Amino acid sequence: MARIKLGMVGGGNDAFIGGVHRIASRIDDRFELVAGALSSTPEKAQASGEALGLPRIYDDFKAMAIREARLKNGIEAVSIVTPNHVHYAAAREFLKRGIHVICDKPLTSTLADAKKLVKAAESSDALFVLTHNYTGYPMVRQAKAMVDAGEIGTIRVVQVEYPQDWLTQDETFKQAEWRTDPARSGAGGSTGDIGTHAHNLACFITGLEVESLAADLDAFVPGRQVDDNGHVMLRFKGGAKGMLWCSQVAPGNENALRIRVYGDKGGLEWAQEDPNYLWYTPFGEPTRKITRNGAGAGDAAARMSRIPPGHPEGYLEGFANIYSEAADAIEAHRGGGAVAAEVMYPTIQDGLQGVRFIDACVRSSARNAAWVSL
Amino acid sequence: MARIKLGMVGGGNDAFIGGVHRIASRIDDRFELVAGALSSTPEKAQASGEALGLPRIYDDFKAMAIREARLKNGIEAVSIVTPNHVHYAAAREFLKRGIHVICDKPLTSTLADAKKLVKAAESSDALFVLTHNYTGYPMVRQAKAMVDAGEIGTIRVVQVEYPQDWLTQDETFKQAEWRTDPARSGAGGSTGDIGTHAHNLACFITGLEVESLAADLDAFVPGRQVDDNGHVMLRFKGGAKGMLWCSQVAPGNENALRIRVYGDKGGLEWAQEDPNYLWYTPFGEPTRKITRNGAGAGDAAARMSRIPPGHPEGYLEGFANIYSEAADAIEAHRGGGAVAAEVMYPTIQDGLQGVRFIDACVRSSARNAAWVSL
Amino acid sequence: MARIKLGMVGGGNDAFIGGVHRIASRIDDRFELVAGALSSTPEKAQASGEALGLPRIYDDFKAMAIREARLKNGIEAVSIVTPNHVHYAAAREFLKRGIHVICDKPLTSTLADAKKLVKAAESSDALFVLTHNYTGYPMVRQAKAMVDAGEIGTIRVVQVEYPQDWLTQDETFKQAEWRTDPARSGAGGSTGDIGTHAHNLACFITGLEVESLAADLDAFVPGRQVDDNGHVMLRFKGGAKGMLWCSQVAPGNENALRIRVYGDKGGLEWAQEDPNYLWYTPFGEPTRKITRNGAGAGDAAARMSRIPPGHPEGYLEGFANIYSEAADAIEAHRGGGAVAAEVMYPTIQDGLQGVRFIDACVRSSARNAAWVSL
Amino acid sequence: MARIKLGMVGGGNDAFIGGVHRIASRIDDRFELVAGALSSTPEKAQASGEALGLPRIYDDFKAMAIREARLKNGIEAVSIVTPNHVHYAAAREFLKRGIHVICDKPLTSTLADAKKLVKAAESSDALFVLTHNYTGYPMVRQAKAMVDAGEIGTIRVVQVEYPQDWLTQDETFKQAEWRTDPARSGAGGSTGDIGTHAHNLACFITGLEVESLAADLDAFVPGRQVDDNGHVMLRFKGGAKGMLWCSQVAPGNENALRIRVYGDKGGLEWAQEDPNYLWYTPFGEPTRKITRNGAGAGDAAARMSRIPPGHPEGYLEGFANIYSEAADAIEAHRGGGAVAAEVMYPTIQDGLQGVRFIDACVRSSARNAAWVSL
Repeated sequence: MARIKLGMVGGGNDAFIGGVHRIASRIDDRFELVAGALSSTPEKAQASGEALGLPRIYDDFKAMAIREARLKNGIEAVSIVTPNHVHYAAAREFLKRGIHVICDKPLTSTLADAKKLVKAAESSDALFVLTHNYTGYPMVRQAKAMVDAGEIGTIRVVQVEYPQDWLTQDETFKQAEWRTDPARSGAGGSTGDIGTHAHNLACFITGLEVESLAADLDAFVPGRQVDDNGHVMLRFKGGAKGMLWCSQVAPGNENALRIRVYGDKGGLEWAQEDPNYLWYTPFGEPTRKITRNGAGAGDAAARMSRIPPGHPEGYLEGFANIYSEAADAIEAHRGGGAVAAEVMYPTIQDGLQGVRFIDACVRSSARNAAWVSL
Repeated sequence: MARIKLGMVGGGNDAFIGGVHRIASRIDDRFELVAGALSSTPEKAQASGEALGLPRIYDDFKAMAIREARLKNGIEAVSIVTPNHVHYAAAREFLKRGIHVICDKPLTSTLADAKKLVKAAESSDALFVLTHNYTGYPMVRQAKAMVDAGEIGTIRVVQVEYPQDWLTQDETFKQAEWRTDPARSGAGGSTGDIGTHAHNLACFITGLEVESLAADLDAFVPGRQVDDNGHVMLRFKGGAKGMLWCSQVAPGNENALRIRVYGDKGGLEWAQEDPNYLWYTPFGEPTRKITRNGAGAGDAAARMSRIPPGHPEGYLEGFANIYSEAADAIEAHRGGGAVAAEVMYPTIQDGLQGVRFIDACVRSSARNAAWVSL
Repeated sequence: MARIKLGMVGGGNDAFIGGVHRIASRIDDRFELVAGALSSTPEKAQASGEALGLPRIYDDFKAMAIREARLKNGIEAVSIVTPNHVHYAAAREFLKRGIHVICDKPLTSTLADAKKLVKAAESSDALFVLTHNYTGYPMVRQAKAMVDAGEIGTIRVVQVEYPQDWLTQDETFKQAEWRTDPARSGAGGSTGDIGTHAHNLACFITGLEVESLAADLDAFVPGRQVDDNGHVMLRFKGGAKGMLWCSQVAPGNENALRIRVYGDKGGLEWAQEDPNYLWYTPFGEPTRKITRNGAGAGDAAARMSRIPPGHPEGYLEGFANIYSEAADAIEAHRGGGAVAAEVMYPTIQDGLQGVRFIDACVRSSARNAAWVSL
Repeated sequence: MARIKLGMVGGGNDAFIGGVHRIASRIDDRFELVAGALSSTPEKAQASGEALGLPRIYDDFKAMAIREARLKNGIEAVSIVTPNHVHYAAAREFLKRGIHVICDKPLTSTLADAKKLVKAAESSDALFVLTHNYTGYPMVRQAKAMVDAGEIGTIRVVQVEYPQDWLTQDETFKQAEWRTDPARSGAGGSTGDIGTHAHNLACFITGLEVESLAADLDAFVPGRQVDDNGHVMLRFKGGAKGMLWCSQVAPGNENALRIRVYGDKGGLEWAQEDPNYLWYTPFGEPTRKITRNGAGAGDAAARMSRIPPGHPEGYLEGFANIYSEAADAIEAHRGGGAVAAEVMYPTIQDGLQGVRFIDACVRSSARNAAWVSL
């Protein structure tokens, strides 16, 4: 099967997530990066493209979309890895030309943009994949499969948290700068940057949907314009309850996304920083440590896993799994066939839910943490 | 120094916490149990007292209070370890006769009783010690000392949780039975039984007071009359924020009280099930594992510790520390002197705050998790 | 049942293990300390006895043995908690007068003394209990019961280690001083002080006996006269193999006794510093976390446990379990009846094996780590 | 910089390590796999090459070496990932033609082959890189840098172990089959397959060399022709001592390589299954958790790390680091310049030491675990 020709928007020299997407796209050798508009500054776009040895370098994403769509061997998919406020405009250009979009989260910086982008996607034949990368971890898939199989029974309580500490003080480097600027990140700070991951992970594993939430958001660092800590109570459709905590001011936490799900028959626990383990307790029995590709792990995890148990896979492999799912979907799309049932990736609807989540958090917090619907 | 003559109310043969109090009172050899009214059922009171070889056995606590107060070598202190609804009436009898009271938590089953008991205590010369035993753990003392010394700076976020799983299903044994009966436990279920511990621990370590809270309480087990899961958002006086989760329906959690405190200079983490460790992160430096009596632990922890690091102390030793603090206070009281500054035990005011916490949770939850003051 | 009258030899004011024995004897309220010869220095013996409020204080153990044996309510048992070289002479005096002996480990400081003490015990009607306290931990009992029940199959490999760091540098305080003096501790340093615990634990859990060993001992700290690090390869009767490591110069290890046992059907792992957990892996299945008094733990552990799972018990409770086993045995002995089958405590034969172990380590190391029989 | 043209010998469809090498070579985008002789069976070589879409497919490695050396754009380096007994013959063909060799471990299946291969490498201008991949983990680099900087002082004790459980029973699948056949794996079983990794890791981090060892090897599974468990005592040049344990019959251990190093100033601990952490204890201070790219980690680790702390990197990234070091060396070699000092990869001398280690283990064990020199 020929590798999928890929373009990239954003991800220039000093970016973080662009490099992650590039590695992720390479790991399973199903994509080939051949074009890029890597920066909104033309000189930087040029320099960054040359540094990567890209065959085709563009100054802006629109020019890239137009030309690549016309090329005989133009890109079949594009990765959009810019700051949030650019997602909408960029994605729209590629969708309208039938080029598949792999877009970083959150979907957009405003709810209005998110809704428009959903429409753009619905009008397009192209696929839209959102990189809520944590759903690509094998043991997250394992957890979802176990919930689906009823192994923990009816879900009652979901505790999800995503603390970090890198914004504990006022920071001015690039990654911090745009993420704390509402014009570029959107109205949510920690809620948008990481809270959406937590929200998405909770929904993915449990199959539940948040009906309403009450959020108490804070910007603890003086002068910060967006929240750096969010406390959120969740009510899921069907009656389950949850708590979500996201923070960027919690010293000692690097990237400590963690989820615990409790049903009337058992409990599950998974932590992103030690991702190869899933802790499972059937009620009344000892807790089990299920390991990636090890005893107790099933097909859903094995599909997402490359190497034997005890040989840890990490963040990049989990991210690569989203790319591999995208590749499966794109290849099926090429042939006009249906995507296999086990192929799962976050969709534009998940993205819309994420932006609704941010929007609801901000609205609730502005109303003294009143309950608001998503 | 002669051992303190101790009586006990409650704690008969099939009780849990009575046995804990008895061991705790023995560990440091400063108390001697000489009298008891161990059950509200006279035959059981008699049988339980005989099983323990008690010198003086009573059918009811009032008779015990009256007689012991008149005896030349009557009890100097009494431990009250009954179900919650009995605390008030029992404590009052001893306080009014100048016998020191060591009482299990929560203080009472209603806020009205709590307020009356505070008055009774204020009118008495006797001491009142509430066994929020988790404040007796050496590493909890270490955490408090570090907060007091400013080592984590100004506190911003407090995450405290206390999940258990023993009430995941409908249970009928004695421990479960009275704890799920609002007439005996009070209006709070998990909030009263364990949420108060979490609340107390958060306040003890941080020195902060909860100003208001928003609580979403559930009784997930069909037919249960009190909450078995509580999600609570906290606002502390001074601006810190917190989340508190208590649950008795979270499979895989035995007694998983855990607290994390984050300030602008650092973070602390402590877990009751692994109580000999305190995890400390000065912002921007590696996390340190401070161990009981080990390097990095200071005087406040050493006072509460009997044996070298690496020789784990546990729940009973932490509980015994409350008894030892009580003994220090009682001995100082004997001589009419002041209690040394480092002696710390939960007071009746802490108990009142605990009952206010339960009351606020129940009121808030009844009003759709609106914010209520304590 | 009346409490057992207990005496103590050694354990004066600045001792460590004496205090541990006293707490251990109190926890379950089955002993009453009424006499002591707490130091070899008469003034200190007197002062230490007074500090504890002992009814009968002696200057030396022989006088105590003689008098207590004649008293109507004299001691029924004695705890010997002196430095090693005193064990033999002290134990002999009590054994010959029919007073039960509870003795700290290692049994004696020389193999010759150990053999003589075995004879003395065989000639006496009194019981002899050696405080290899780690065999009192509930999860150690659980491990033994699982091995006995065949849950890990035929044992192949035993990895046991006991690293500490408190003698990393040259130390002069009392605990360090006698333990590094071969005249008082015996020829083994770390091997005698902690290696014997590791050896005993391995034999206790597996039911196996060491046939021969090869030991490479070192005294890394300049001027130290006994080993502070021991590397030992073990061959068990029946074909299992093992490694034993003991060290007092391993920074970061406080009291890190740990054992792993592997059979052809499964594996077990237990660590003293986190003693409430036993990790069990049936081959081909996920690892299980069995907790004290929790799901998966059986009767052998429950017998040794006081409080519910999640409420950690520690070193003192494990030590107290040896005292409770001794109390069971002493009470059975009183009535002339047999000790119940489930009562287990380390015997003088275990003690002899421990001294053989030390002796073998020293002999092997002197012969360039040649294999020697025990 | 143009990507390095790479060939591969071995690594056909049902191999494990070939796929690992391919991913590792891709992650940092510095190699391009263009040729392969992926199996000793021509049909399988062809089919496997086609499955990977290789431009040039060969039936055997010699034909590949001859032709690629003549091609204008032939491969510049070759990865040899066959069973051990083929390493020598294959590597020789490429070395003699000036093609750089990246070879899996152990170097060869016999010591005689290893010595001949060292000579072949010395006669060649080509580089030789041995994939002792665990030395590529960032926190292993961190550990080495800390030892080099004297942070733990003079090393006294090294405890290294590598238990697995996949050969607990008799297995017949391909990975198990050749690894338990001495004709293909060499005389060492677990010692060769994983013991060499443990030996290499200990030497790499400490900078010490093993002077002599005493090994007790077993084949616990009936009928197994090579050891499946090895107990080894180590004496390092300069006086440090160590223990090495390797096992493939230890249920509950997936790939549990772990090392602990103790000096007179501190200790270090690292575990392959949780590779992003390094535990460091300066003697007399609390243990610190140093994290990859986090606070406390230095340049040596940062060079080997792609993403921020808290975003776990794993086995494949560590393996890729060896490929990146190889790429640095190859690029320096192209220009005739010296390789930068910080570039480190396992050399053919390390490989020779590894085979000497296996040989010494086997010789020692045959002589009742006598001490033998390497």
